[in-house]
Amino acid sequence: MSGKSFSEFALIARLTKNLPSNDAVSFGVGDDCALLDLGGERLTLATCDSQVEGIHFTLKTSTAEQIGRKALAVNSSDIAAMGGVPRFALVSLVIPPHIAPDFVEQVYSGLRQEAERFSTVIVGGNIASSGASSPFVIDITMLGAVERESVILRSGAREGDIVCVTGMLGDAAAGLYTLLHPDNDYTFGACEYVRRRHCVPEPRVEVGQVLSRFGPQIVTAMLDISDGLSGDLAHICERSRVGACVEVACLPISSSLQTIAHESGQDALHWVLHGGEDYELLFTVAPGYEQQVRAAVLAETGIDVACIGGILPASEEIGLVLPGGQRERLRSQSWDHIKDLSRLA
Amino acid sequence: MSGKSFSEFALIARLTKNLPSNDAVSFGVGDDCALLDLGGERLTLATCDSQVEGIHFTLKTSTAEQIGRKALAVNSSDIAAMGGVPRFALVSLVIPPHIAPDFVEQVYSGLRQEAERFSTVIVGGNIASSGASSPFVIDITMLGAVERESVILRSGAREGDIVCVTGMLGDAAAGLYTLLHPDNDYTFGACEYVRRRHCVPEPRVEVGQVLSRFGPQIVTAMLDISDGLSGDLAHICERSRVGACVEVACLPISSSLQTIAHESGQDALHWVLHGGEDYELLFTVAPGYEQQVRAAVLAETGIDVACIGGILPASEEIGLVLPGGQRERLRSQSWDHIKDLSRLA
Repeated sequence: MSGKSFSEFALIARLTKNLPSNDAVSFGVGDDCALLDLGGERLTLATCDSQVEGIHFTLKTSTAEQIGRKALAVNSSDIAAMGGVPRFALVSLVIPPHIAPDFVEQVYSGLRQEAERFSTVIVGGNIASSGASSPFVIDITMLGAVERESVILRSGAREGDIVCVTGMLGDAAAGLYTLLHPDNDYTFGACEYVRRRHCVPEPRVEVGQVLSRFGPQIVTAMLDISDGLSGDLAHICERSRVGACVEVACLPISSSLQTIAHESGQDALHWVLHGGEDYELLFTVAPGYEQQVRAAVLAETGIDVACIGGILPASEEIGLVLPGGQRERLRSQSWDHIKDLSRLA
Repeated sequence: MSGKSFSEFALIARLTKNLPSNDAVSFGVGDDCALLDLGGERLTLATCDSQVEGIHFTLKTSTAEQIGRKALAVNSSDIAAMGGVPRFALVSLVIPPHIAPDFVEQVYSGLRQEAERFSTVIVGGNIASSGASSPFVIDITMLGAVERESVILRSGAREGDIVCVTGMLGDAAAGLYTLLHPDNDYTFGACEYVRRRHCVPEPRVEVGQVLSRFGPQIVTAMLDISDGLSGDLAHICERSRVGACVEVACLPISSSLQTIAHESGQDALHWVLHGGEDYELLFTVAPGYEQQVRAAVLAETGIDVACIGGILPASEEIGLVLPGGQRERLRSQSWDHIKDLSRLA
């Protein structure tokens, strides 16, 4: 469930309260994926996520192929965030009259390219027409597989664990900013980089595999950053019933993001702390293991891991340590697409 | 995939041409569900279907609870049509501003009621907001289970098989007609019955179980009637590479439908042949077994089965035998919601 506003989270909580379950459901609503025991050697992961025109993308800021790739990638990212590999996808499209069949075919081409990267098979789907002035909707359900002993939930973080993150933070938000403000004068390479991070996110499937091999005793909690660091760290803290602090000096910030922030007069730190849709993995590591984990991820995937903070007792708020040593509360500001994209819709 | 127009079928064919597959996919796109081997004792069925405001329902003709029940029921029906039982559902909602949280909660209440009927567990989902003038969309993915030797595909019909159908045909179309023409004078009970058949379809899960126990050597092909008898029989014939004929005198027609047709001056046979969304099971039975199958279904579920025709060689068209013995071609007229519901949207 990516890029939600607070009211969406509140509604989800209302709707899913006291849902019935059964023995085959190892874990239902409340993590990146549901975890099902269908009797095979591995457990099955199931997740769904939709991309809605005017909310998650616009036809002015993404190509058809990019829209398809991203719709699939955000689901692969949810599977990766539980330590699994994506296996099967079902693709449901709701198509209004302003979307031509050729455009849909290009979207599907993006879906297929992204699926092939991880040998995910598109096994079914649905197409429905909708009326004039309706948005184009792509809703994907993905099934993945995970070793029984390797599942990493959001709920396992313990006091003293190290908070880690893959890659760079805030790039996607910076990319969206440049798309919404195309008339500014940006350095070409920096602008291309952050736009690509927004339009074609990279699900960290290989990294998730390395982390899941360490098992939940070492990599104790994990999710993918769709709502932004502040919002998603709050999800881990809530599920694990812990507090946390993040050191600003340790946050991984790309030079491209810094360039764009400088050129546009925007606050780089705001993008890094609260910008959504980076689809990096945010995870916690038992103390003493962080260098070993970091080295393994770098060696096997070429992706850097940053240790950005620590897990505190539940009595502590989620805090930020500024470069000068001052502390302040890190308030979660979940990424609200509507606020940003509706101007273009 | 229910209630499609011809252009939707053509687009699906274009998009899904030459999709890659792998060993775990027993059957991909092209039947009621995908059939996956996830290593357990039983195979996994996966299907998705969406209900779009203004196309599949309107707020003027269905209650929130009915919308939720139907959204789940049409997916259970797809699972039943392969001989499986529904097990898990993922619920994806796209919610525009005109849909209040209380309304969504009532939709979810309908979903939960319908899920509990067959012990289906809602294990996940997604909520996305959409802009003003967007339709409310409910997209459900359902996973089911089926015994390996009991799967019934669309493709198994053979020359000489008997064409059978559960329950009554055309009721849902008659019900929709009364909702679209509320000012006519209808007999109350008949009108209530056909409206209920439209608004709250009954997935034939128990019947599907009885039929699947006979196995695909006896019950050779099956699907659920979402597009209408003419369209769905054409799907079986196309997949099985056979022809078929249907005897008008054998079609199961409810007295309520006849009453409504009479009172509205409409053609009852048109609803029976072409009306969609009855969600009855259409299946073919090896010759000589039809009475045994019919008796078993009636004894175990209380649902009547009608033998309505026979499977012919591929060289034959799909034909209709009129009560006087004349033959004519049965042209498939797939159910197009838009034509009917958009007037109210």
